[in-house]
Amino acid sequence: MPRFECTKCGKEFPFDSALTRCTSCGEPLEVKYEFASPEIHKSEFLLEKYRDFLPFSRPNKALSLGEGFTPLLRLKKLGEMLGLHNLYAKNETMNPTWSFKDRGTICGIQYALDSGYSEVGTVSTGNMGASVAAYGSRAGMRTHILVSSSIELEKVIPISVYGAHVVKVEGDYGKLYYESLRVGEELGICFINSDHPLRIEGSKTIAFEICEQMSFEPPDWVIVPTSSGGNFRGIVKGFIEFRDLGLIDRLPRFIVVQAAGCCPIAQAFREGKEEIRHFGRPKTIAHGISNPYPPSGNEVLRILRRLHGIALTVNDEEIIKAQLLLAREVIFAQPAGAVPIAALDELVSKGIIDRNDTVVCVITGAGLKYLHSVRQVSHEITTIPFEQLSSALSNARPSGS
Amino acid sequence: MPRFECTKCGKEFPFDSALTRCTSCGEPLEVKYEFASPEIHKSEFLLEKYRDFLPFSRPNKALSLGEGFTPLLRLKKLGEMLGLHNLYAKNETMNPTWSFKDRGTICGIQYALDSGYSEVGTVSTGNMGASVAAYGSRAGMRTHILVSSSIELEKVIPISVYGAHVVKVEGDYGKLYYESLRVGEELGICFINSDHPLRIEGSKTIAFEICEQMSFEPPDWVIVPTSSGGNFRGIVKGFIEFRDLGLIDRLPRFIVVQAAGCCPIAQAFREGKEEIRHFGRPKTIAHGISNPYPPSGNEVLRILRRLHGIALTVNDEEIIKAQLLLAREVIFAQPAGAVPIAALDELVSKGIIDRNDTVVCVITGAGLKYLHSVRQVSHEITTIPFEQLSSALSNARPSGS
Repeated sequence: MPRFECTKCGKEFPFDSALTRCTSCGEPLEVKYEFASPEIHKSEFLLEKYRDFLPFSRPNKALSLGEGFTPLLRLKKLGEMLGLHNLYAKNETMNPTWSFKDRGTICGIQYALDSGYSEVGTVSTGNMGASVAAYGSRAGMRTHILVSSSIELEKVIPISVYGAHVVKVEGDYGKLYYESLRVGEELGICFINSDHPLRIEGSKTIAFEICEQMSFEPPDWVIVPTSSGGNFRGIVKGFIEFRDLGLIDRLPRFIVVQAAGCCPIAQAFREGKEEIRHFGRPKTIAHGISNPYPPSGNEVLRILRRLHGIALTVNDEEIIKAQLLLAREVIFAQPAGAVPIAALDELVSKGIIDRNDTVVCVITGAGLKYLHSVRQVSHEITTIPFEQLSSALSNARPSGS
Repeated sequence: MPRFECTKCGKEFPFDSALTRCTSCGEPLEVKYEFASPEIHKSEFLLEKYRDFLPFSRPNKALSLGEGFTPLLRLKKLGEMLGLHNLYAKNETMNPTWSFKDRGTICGIQYALDSGYSEVGTVSTGNMGASVAAYGSRAGMRTHILVSSSIELEKVIPISVYGAHVVKVEGDYGKLYYESLRVGEELGICFINSDHPLRIEGSKTIAFEICEQMSFEPPDWVIVPTSSGGNFRGIVKGFIEFRDLGLIDRLPRFIVVQAAGCCPIAQAFREGKEEIRHFGRPKTIAHGISNPYPPSGNEVLRILRRLHGIALTVNDEEIIKAQLLLAREVIFAQPAGAVPIAALDELVSKGIIDRNDTVVCVITGAGLKYLHSVRQVSHEITTIPFEQLSSALSNARPSGS
């Protein structure tokens, strides 16, 4: 039987406790297993394929929207530009709601159903809200998405369109995570928040897939945009489980990237602190990673120390530049999704990453989700009358431009 | 060796002729094969998997972005609502640039490279422009995307971000298709337009996948949003090839759906005409299927007659309603992508589709591409102060609402 275990003090809790954080130290829990020679199964359904590594006795395919199984793309041009010979992108923008969140959401929903819940919720301004709204609707569950009261309509539509109840909450958005857990317990609503232990289980399938796509020869580096810390924790957990089971023979080194305008983890890492502090008001276009008080921040710090990882920041200008470079190579990512690319320059020039190292950047969400960031960039657009088509195309050629 | 054959008069042309339309009758060409016991291969690369059914001797995996392999989802709730027991959606929104176009584009790009081109182009206001821009960039080709001069910035960004040269052309957008072919020939630019014979080859993989996903028991009906007619032609061709090779034992019946505000094919079908007429100015929110003079329109009419297909229209109100219904079941499609769902009501109530029939709707592109259509719809949004979270969620429950 799987169980929950505190990531900090190691205290154990039964799997049906419905807890997400340690009742002693308050730190996040994770799922622990007694694996008995688990196998990767042949299936197009993620929870079935990895069923031996997940805590579901009967994963329900009817809940699935086809999450996971995303491509690992070689970035040849970008690699050449940076002097990296083996640069890859794990393209999570091809998930059903166009971000990595769908992996964790299906695990959360399966868990909520197994545990007898009929209502789910989450606290999110973007990807996670859309994902939970979609899967909640698929599962026929009443779904509540708590968003910041300042959210733009552009971001509400892709959530509410799935039929969820969207609640704009005025007040401290950072505290909403904890308040949602309290209210969820009170009302019997399963809040699948950013670092819910089951969401971590979903994120670990990113690591599993990378291992398989690289023929079980793990990369030297994995770079992850990090906000709450849930996705990072899941990816690390996936590599550790495969290593412990002998499926890979070593771990990659892990790099956390945050936006300079909201970097509580990178800041604490730089200052050698063991705990993060509330960052204050986020100032970055990378909204997807702008949690000023990441609930798994301390655990991310512990992981980085234990596994000799790195945390660093990139500014908005670098993020937009990275979005464009990545689009030319050819994933149109949202700003938050492009931060691993934005970090490469510094990592290579400081000699942290060697030119021959194999590097995987996790590209978390689709650029269509937020067009504004690249709106002001100068695009190559010509306007011509119909009759001038030939000369316009002729003049626009590389030799003539 | 594959060859081109006119869809109307049957005239043949060599595969290296670089033609897309018949030099005698002007109608579109298609690729014909002498199949020698082709097999479906094990591969994550679409052109490799179906290489025995495609005209590429050496498909280049480096061009791939992970196109195809999209889920076929059962729509249980929506089926129940409409009284259909076996309703499915082929979710093409999970392609690399979030529409079905990527399948045809990789075929077009592979063909252009095999034929020695270094520049590609297309005429598009949306999905196809983004797709060709992305794959052209991946292939390192100079890429020209011709768009209407009235296009909104929201639609230009997801094209130009990939680094393409975007040309806004003033004048008759309908004629631009033909002008692009002429100028392309003059300048040596391979225009992979909507019904390019190689694009048809890409679209046929939708049919191949549906057959496999249904264990080679084809559905009774396949419903396709139709504009230029290219995707429809490809899907039909895929089923025919599998039938002719004995992989399936019968064909589905095919249904073309157009927006009432731009329905040159449905109109000609209704009037029993053999040729479409220019529809005039399109008036529909389904921009993705608003070609007023579809270049494959006549061939679509021929197919419908030959195979006892159907063409019908849906209005904008029905399209928006279908978008919302589909999102609740849980694909957020662009308006054009939701038109098969919009047509179901009429098809069932008129007794054309029987309740026990198996129906596949092809959902062509992602809702994120055009949020405006559902902007005015009333969404369930509550705004509350932080302290009222518990009561707001409690009151919002089904029993209390």
